[in-house]
Amino acid sequence: MQFQPILDQINDEIRPLLGQAGTVASYIPALARVPAAQFGIAMRTCEGEEACAGDAATPFSIQSISKLFTLTLAMRRMGEVLWERIGREPSGNPFNSLVQLENEQGKPRNPFINAGAIAVADRLLNDGDAQRDLLAFMSSLAGEPIAFDEEVAASEAATGYRNFALANFMKSFGKIDHDVTPVLDMYFHQCALRMNCVQLARAAGFLCRDGAHPLGGAPAVCTERQTRRINALMLTCGTYDAAGDVAFSIGLPCKSGVGGGIVAVVPDQLTLAVWSPALDATGNSLLGLKALELFVAKTGLSVF
Amino acid sequence: MQFQPILDQINDEIRPLLGQAGTVASYIPALARVPAAQFGIAMRTCEGEEACAGDAATPFSIQSISKLFTLTLAMRRMGEVLWERIGREPSGNPFNSLVQLENEQGKPRNPFINAGAIAVADRLLNDGDAQRDLLAFMSSLAGEPIAFDEEVAASEAATGYRNFALANFMKSFGKIDHDVTPVLDMYFHQCALRMNCVQLARAAGFLCRDGAHPLGGAPAVCTERQTRRINALMLTCGTYDAAGDVAFSIGLPCKSGVGGGIVAVVPDQLTLAVWSPALDATGNSLLGLKALELFVAKTGLSVF
Amino acid sequence: MQFQPILDQINDEIRPLLGQAGTVASYIPALARVPAAQFGIAMRTCEGEEACAGDAATPFSIQSISKLFTLTLAMRRMGEVLWERIGREPSGNPFNSLVQLENEQGKPRNPFINAGAIAVADRLLNDGDAQRDLLAFMSSLAGEPIAFDEEVAASEAATGYRNFALANFMKSFGKIDHDVTPVLDMYFHQCALRMNCVQLARAAGFLCRDGAHPLGGAPAVCTERQTRRINALMLTCGTYDAAGDVAFSIGLPCKSGVGGGIVAVVPDQLTLAVWSPALDATGNSLLGLKALELFVAKTGLSVF
Amino acid sequence: MQFQPILDQINDEIRPLLGQAGTVASYIPALARVPAAQFGIAMRTCEGEEACAGDAATPFSIQSISKLFTLTLAMRRMGEVLWERIGREPSGNPFNSLVQLENEQGKPRNPFINAGAIAVADRLLNDGDAQRDLLAFMSSLAGEPIAFDEEVAASEAATGYRNFALANFMKSFGKIDHDVTPVLDMYFHQCALRMNCVQLARAAGFLCRDGAHPLGGAPAVCTERQTRRINALMLTCGTYDAAGDVAFSIGLPCKSGVGGGIVAVVPDQLTLAVWSPALDATGNSLLGLKALELFVAKTGLSVF
Repeated sequence: MQFQPILDQINDEIRPLLGQAGTVASYIPALARVPAAQFGIAMRTCEGEEACAGDAATPFSIQSISKLFTLTLAMRRMGEVLWERIGREPSGNPFNSLVQLENEQGKPRNPFINAGAIAVADRLLNDGDAQRDLLAFMSSLAGEPIAFDEEVAASEAATGYRNFALANFMKSFGKIDHDVTPVLDMYFHQCALRMNCVQLARAAGFLCRDGAHPLGGAPAVCTERQTRRINALMLTCGTYDAAGDVAFSIGLPCKSGVGGGIVAVVPDQLTLAVWSPALDATGNSLLGLKALELFVAKTGLSVF
Repeated sequence: MQFQPILDQINDEIRPLLGQAGTVASYIPALARVPAAQFGIAMRTCEGEEACAGDAATPFSIQSISKLFTLTLAMRRMGEVLWERIGREPSGNPFNSLVQLENEQGKPRNPFINAGAIAVADRLLNDGDAQRDLLAFMSSLAGEPIAFDEEVAASEAATGYRNFALANFMKSFGKIDHDVTPVLDMYFHQCALRMNCVQLARAAGFLCRDGAHPLGGAPAVCTERQTRRINALMLTCGTYDAAGDVAFSIGLPCKSGVGGGIVAVVPDQLTLAVWSPALDATGNSLLGLKALELFVAKTGLSVF
Repeated sequence: MQFQPILDQINDEIRPLLGQAGTVASYIPALARVPAAQFGIAMRTCEGEEACAGDAATPFSIQSISKLFTLTLAMRRMGEVLWERIGREPSGNPFNSLVQLENEQGKPRNPFINAGAIAVADRLLNDGDAQRDLLAFMSSLAGEPIAFDEEVAASEAATGYRNFALANFMKSFGKIDHDVTPVLDMYFHQCALRMNCVQLARAAGFLCRDGAHPLGGAPAVCTERQTRRINALMLTCGTYDAAGDVAFSIGLPCKSGVGGGIVAVVPDQLTLAVWSPALDATGNSLLGLKALELFVAKTGLSVF
Repeated sequence: MQFQPILDQINDEIRPLLGQAGTVASYIPALARVPAAQFGIAMRTCEGEEACAGDAATPFSIQSISKLFTLTLAMRRMGEVLWERIGREPSGNPFNSLVQLENEQGKPRNPFINAGAIAVADRLLNDGDAQRDLLAFMSSLAGEPIAFDEEVAASEAATGYRNFALANFMKSFGKIDHDVTPVLDMYFHQCALRMNCVQLARAAGFLCRDGAHPLGGAPAVCTERQTRRINALMLTCGTYDAAGDVAFSIGLPCKSGVGGGIVAVVPDQLTLAVWSPALDATGNSLLGLKALELFVAKTGLSVF
């Protein structure tokens, strides 16, 4: 299949819609000032073919997409024991709800809600310098240096009362081992990773290659079985409270962030990254989802 | 791939485990008296090749698996308008919870929780004789006559207070159009459909054939797009509160019932039906899930 | 204290406010067509002195005020065993919520929420003809014949889906012994009792007389201890989700109904009944509460 | 009435029960090491008559009883505006639940749950040195110097993750104005007030004297109307999730703490303080409640 023309078509169809609907995340200034009328799309096949269109080279804050990569790091370090602290079920509730945490004694339902990612960050603090390790991991996956946006990390920390509430609440149940402050420092930094679509499509590449490093050469990122499981979690839990609808209408494992990015996987074939800052009511990129729907419609690629 | 030897191996591995764990559903006598130590498996490829092993010819009560077929009927009759009354998100709660219904003003989160299936039954009562139509649909799909187990239907009705509560609750929000009694009569009958693994694997065949009738010849059961969507719903919502775990460990769209049956789909390839009456804590067949895990491990087939 | 002038003053102050705010209950036609601009107040001291003003002789549907009388009947028949099925805590939730019932396995939090009153009705069906017994009880307390408004009872039954849901839900937990239909028939009839303020102030008289029959002569209605407990329940649970606010601003045990009536008790001194059909957002009579506030301000009577 | 003999009788009846049931709060060492087998009772009439028995002079950590005094301070400083941030309804849920906070956008249901008392502490930080002011207030009320137990305050701070979660959660809704750290420093200190039964019965004395200072002479503590309202809040919300049961069985406004103390009010007559460290399942002093039941039974004093 010729992918570049398809991405160009998608870009052509999305451009006229820019700025018409949705709302850019406004809870911190660094996100609020991102112009809404941007759209990028990039992909990479498991053979290494790449294509992109629109603002695919513009870096943005990957926010919750980082949960995908910290989960991968934690799974490969800890194996099955990770799941003693974190569930694997969709939350059925807004992504930062405390209700379910209370019902389930401080065990987050899955690693892609905020509480779950904070629990993963706590696990990553067990060994070495978690922030440095994450940067090294991301840079290796993307094939070029990736950095934190320190302004974003500082803003997240200064206003992240709800995440402080979540972390303290889990700690009250004995489900967080480290002090809340360094755990959240890790979490706020991972959310502040700055990448563009091309880098994200590359970095997620192991998810369509049975765990093999996306750029080849290096040792495998994780096992085939772990890769399938991460894809399954993305499909059932990767897009906040809209996961069911996204599976229904797009049918690909996806992980989104409030920065407007979404990573999607076609197992054994390719990974995609789309970005457009304006969000729908569920916190997912409005035109990002639209672009993925177009991609599936044009290519017939879907896991179902 | 040679499937018959694989099913035989699975049967050989499962047989020694029969009767060791899990609990047969006991809320009605007709289910409670089913001997636990039974296991059947059957499959059918999209080309029509069939294989089966164990108690694949023993009929059982398909219970919630029926929700898959009534949903299909309702989708092809009503199209998009069906979703005004029913959501498409995982429930994140036990399958018959009233809490979420209250929060969401009587709109069930998806068509595979009891409330959702009751809402689907209400929609099916709009046209013709819903029970007769369902029997005709099932018989056509299975290629042989399918009937209700009237004893089961009567027992469900006599003890189904929670379903009466759900239906009345939805009606209090104006989300059920017909009288509660005929809606639940339809619902209790669909749960009482009596089929075996071979029939179920066949009947679900349209789900691996882009909606084409499983036995060929007849007009399509539904569109390709609808088929993908049904598969997506099965994956995210088909196995009660364990859908996330089942996606994680098996990675196939599945729909289970408390009679111990599970239907699974490998899109574009085959459908599977497994049955073993003893349930795990989530209400899914313990050895049915185990058999599906073995199948995926032996064949490498999974959507991820 | 001279009470008649006080009630006259209250009537004079309330009259100009009639029809300005609040909404008459509209869920059944017989309630919806009651003119909003009515107000009555009546009282009776424990020595038998009576006073009234405004529309105190106009009969209305007492609705949830009946829960006070059925509770009294059940307490004197069953004693402590009643509380195995019903709690004594404020609900902290809208009065007909199913959530708490689910969390507490079908045991209603108190006898004044709908679920609790339905559970009380179930208990009353254990002996004799519950509806006839209730009429006899009310007529004896009021000193004149009291009857059901059969149109109201029939309308409640025809539209009471949420109460059917509650009753079936409790039955699913084994917390209702009789069939749902006769239990709700009793419940819908008790809600349809038709009384005026004078009759209600008299009928509740045992609550300010340590359980002695309000009109004297007859045997005690209940013990002093039971009387105190009923008053305590009225204070903590008697006015739907506003009980805390009513205790805070009025400071008297009260039981309200969506017909616009409220019964209040000044222990050892008097009982009051007020009525005005327009309700506030919590389902309590807007001007009824206002009148009680005025009464407390003018007399200094309050339990605190 | 002769009160000293009554307190002596109560002490005689309670002593043999010491150490038989209940559990001393163990979440911090300073509380965990308090010997369970202690019981004290003290009272003071509105005329100034005092009586006491048992371990009435032994100081203990008043914990949540402090919420009564900080509420009084905040009410007299702020008047009605206080209630913009705090509700007045019973919680219907365990005392430190986050669920209701989420449903109600960070507004605690009442000032006696932890979240509510933290919100009150935030209000008190608006003016002057809140901790010093509280000590001055308590010392004035008790007529002798009252101090914080700094070990308890430090332990509360070191382990109070759930309170950090509550405060951060409210701050995420914009319902806490000051930084979380000083707000909780105030809160942990108020919980660490160290007093005995005699001091507490005295200090609460304004609640039975229409707001007049318990020891006379000084200006009124609060208005009569405020006093009634505080008593009402104690009755509906003062004993965690057992408030309904306590109103039902004791019938007096009470405020309890997990240190084992309970303050009770007989309006216009007297205040009582009881203390026994072993708690029941609801977090209230098991024998403290028993002693209050005995007091009500022996004296006939109750608000109902």
